Amino acid sequence: MKHHVNFTPGPSQLYFTVPDHVRQAFNDGIPALSHRSKQFDKLFAETTGNLRELLNIPADFHIFFTGSATEIWERIFQNLVAESSFHLENGSFSKRFYETGILLGKKPTKIEAPAGDGFGADVAVPANAELIAITHNETSTGASIPMETIHAMKKNHPNTLLAVDAASSLPYPNFDYHTVDTVFFSVQKGFGLPAGLGVWIVNDRCIAKAESLMARNISIGSYHSLPSLVSHAKKNQTPETPNVLGIYLLGKVTADFLRRGIDTIRRETDYKAAILYKTLEDHPALAPFVNEKAFRSKTVVVANCGAETEKLSAFLSTKGLHAGGGDGAAKKTQLRFANFPAHSKEQFELLADSIAAYD
Amino acid sequence: MKHHVNFTPGPSQLYFTVPDHVRQAFNDGIPALSHRSKQFDKLFAETTGNLRELLNIPADFHIFFTGSATEIWERIFQNLVAESSFHLENGSFSKRFYETGILLGKKPTKIEAPAGDGFGADVAVPANAELIAITHNETSTGASIPMETIHAMKKNHPNTLLAVDAASSLPYPNFDYHTVDTVFFSVQKGFGLPAGLGVWIVNDRCIAKAESLMARNISIGSYHSLPSLVSHAKKNQTPETPNVLGIYLLGKVTADFLRRGIDTIRRETDYKAAILYKTLEDHPALAPFVNEKAFRSKTVVVANCGAETEKLSAFLSTKGLHAGGGDGAAKKTQLRFANFPAHSKEQFELLADSIAAYD
Repeated sequence: MKHHVNFTPGPSQLYFTVPDHVRQAFNDGIPALSHRSKQFDKLFAETTGNLRELLNIPADFHIFFTGSATEIWERIFQNLVAESSFHLENGSFSKRFYETGILLGKKPTKIEAPAGDGFGADVAVPANAELIAITHNETSTGASIPMETIHAMKKNHPNTLLAVDAASSLPYPNFDYHTVDTVFFSVQKGFGLPAGLGVWIVNDRCIAKAESLMARNISIGSYHSLPSLVSHAKKNQTPETPNVLGIYLLGKVTADFLRRGIDTIRRETDYKAAILYKTLEDHPALAPFVNEKAFRSKTVVVANCGAETEKLSAFLSTKGLHAGGGDGAAKKTQLRFANFPAHSKEQFELLADSIAAYD
Repeated sequence: MKHHVNFTPGPSQLYFTVPDHVRQAFNDGIPALSHRSKQFDKLFAETTGNLRELLNIPADFHIFFTGSATEIWERIFQNLVAESSFHLENGSFSKRFYETGILLGKKPTKIEAPAGDGFGADVAVPANAELIAITHNETSTGASIPMETIHAMKKNHPNTLLAVDAASSLPYPNFDYHTVDTVFFSVQKGFGLPAGLGVWIVNDRCIAKAESLMARNISIGSYHSLPSLVSHAKKNQTPETPNVLGIYLLGKVTADFLRRGIDTIRRETDYKAAILYKTLEDHPALAPFVNEKAFRSKTVVVANCGAETEKLSAFLSTKGLHAGGGDGAAKKTQLRFANFPAHSKEQFELLADSIAAYD
């Protein structure tokens, strides 16, 4: 299994430095480290500092850790929405984000686009929406929301909080943090790490909103409420015993990304996406699922393979290339290919050549 | 650091097989394994099956995974309490369990005992309590609730759900599952694993209670509500991308415990606790913090060290024995010693001999 390249969009291919970092972690006693020790304080500061530098996160944003990005959907409703949020829904993940609000007793509303489609800058937002929820990269379909849409939403609704689920896109997108209030992701996708850690980036407006809900006697949760998270993070701590090894590994891989250079990572991502989309366009039996080029994700490429799906997947497997299956009902007609920093140019060239050779 | 023995009560000493299991996990591709794959299904079944065998968990109990035991406090209030729960509070962890209910908008009540004290079978439970919450082992003080108390509570209140926080006691206690409705723990204590995983054991009465709250339009949370957890667990899956590596390691260490034998582990725990308590009783300057023998925890031994605290801790460090500090205000006057399966008899004998030699 270790000689295969895993193109499923998460958990995905491990970044190649991870096994060495795990070995070092065990040598240094990280897995048994107390989360109330000075060494943990240092580790927390290193990981958040590296993330801040890599993703260019401004000083008025905080960085918190959760169990998963799924947990952060819940925390967003608890802490940032008294009544109603507004969702851009174009696939199964943005749908689950929306549905989480209903399950938590809020009244989310939404605009829907068909699978494989995205949203332009002209979306009408209800006046009572306290938060706009955007799934930057719809992992189920490979459709991405353009930065222009995000910027326009913020410009037109400066007083509405804007939340971006960047689960399967970061570290690729270069967000302008003046146009977003909270961004979140999980580490088993673009960061090439073992699953079990979510990262929640929030600004002071979010903290203030959570405090205002609390003042109105609306429950904002307990240990992972924003006031609890921020009071612990100020001491480089977490409210609960966290995934210490996961936080350590995230800091190390982020340092690796910094050495490689975020610009290089972004350029390579563009290159890898371009050759794969070109290969799919040129192939007589295959096509990119997302038609509109502006909506095509750079980090999760979804291919319409129709009747060839199972055969192509098996063919790629013989080359050691493990494609991700289509999401839900698309399982029999689509394949998904993650394009993360863990996937090298050479692996993508082999993937594109192999698909081109398939007939 | 790796040659030290870590006696802090969590994260604590790793079980000695963990580094090898991690190596095997990387060889087998576990950290990049999709949580929707057949291999994960098998892994989930293996871990839950091993836990069921080790802890003698009956068929009408389900086993779920969360990010932490702290998360389970929250999930218990969301899923099992419409209005009011009743708490046995005798230290900082049982206090936080109680306070979680207030933060979630419920109306918990409690009976308090002083730090270091426990509860007998004669506790009066309010008639309107839907759930009795017992912290089996108060990690902050080393006080344990006797099994007789738990059995009596259930016998006297058969229609009230009974929840047991066994965070720092399992796998030592041999619970009679006819007398409890839910039990939970986290893996970085008695299971000697890296932190980042909670284990929630619940029976069908708990599932029914959650469903009854849902029917009354009370929010029971989203992805980690009991109906969501149970519907996924039936397929050996989790609602979110979980800590796959953590679930794998728990299965492997549980298999190691099964090979060693749970009776052997329990006997050794008794032996190790006995020699440490005896040493503390015999020492002129030290004493067990918990006076009443019936309340003395076997798995977390707390020592009153008074003015000797800092010096004794430093002395033990020179022997490679890392004591845990006292909790909160007791930091300057107490030391805590975890007695988990990862701590060998030889290490405990060295610890007891070293303390006896200290003057």
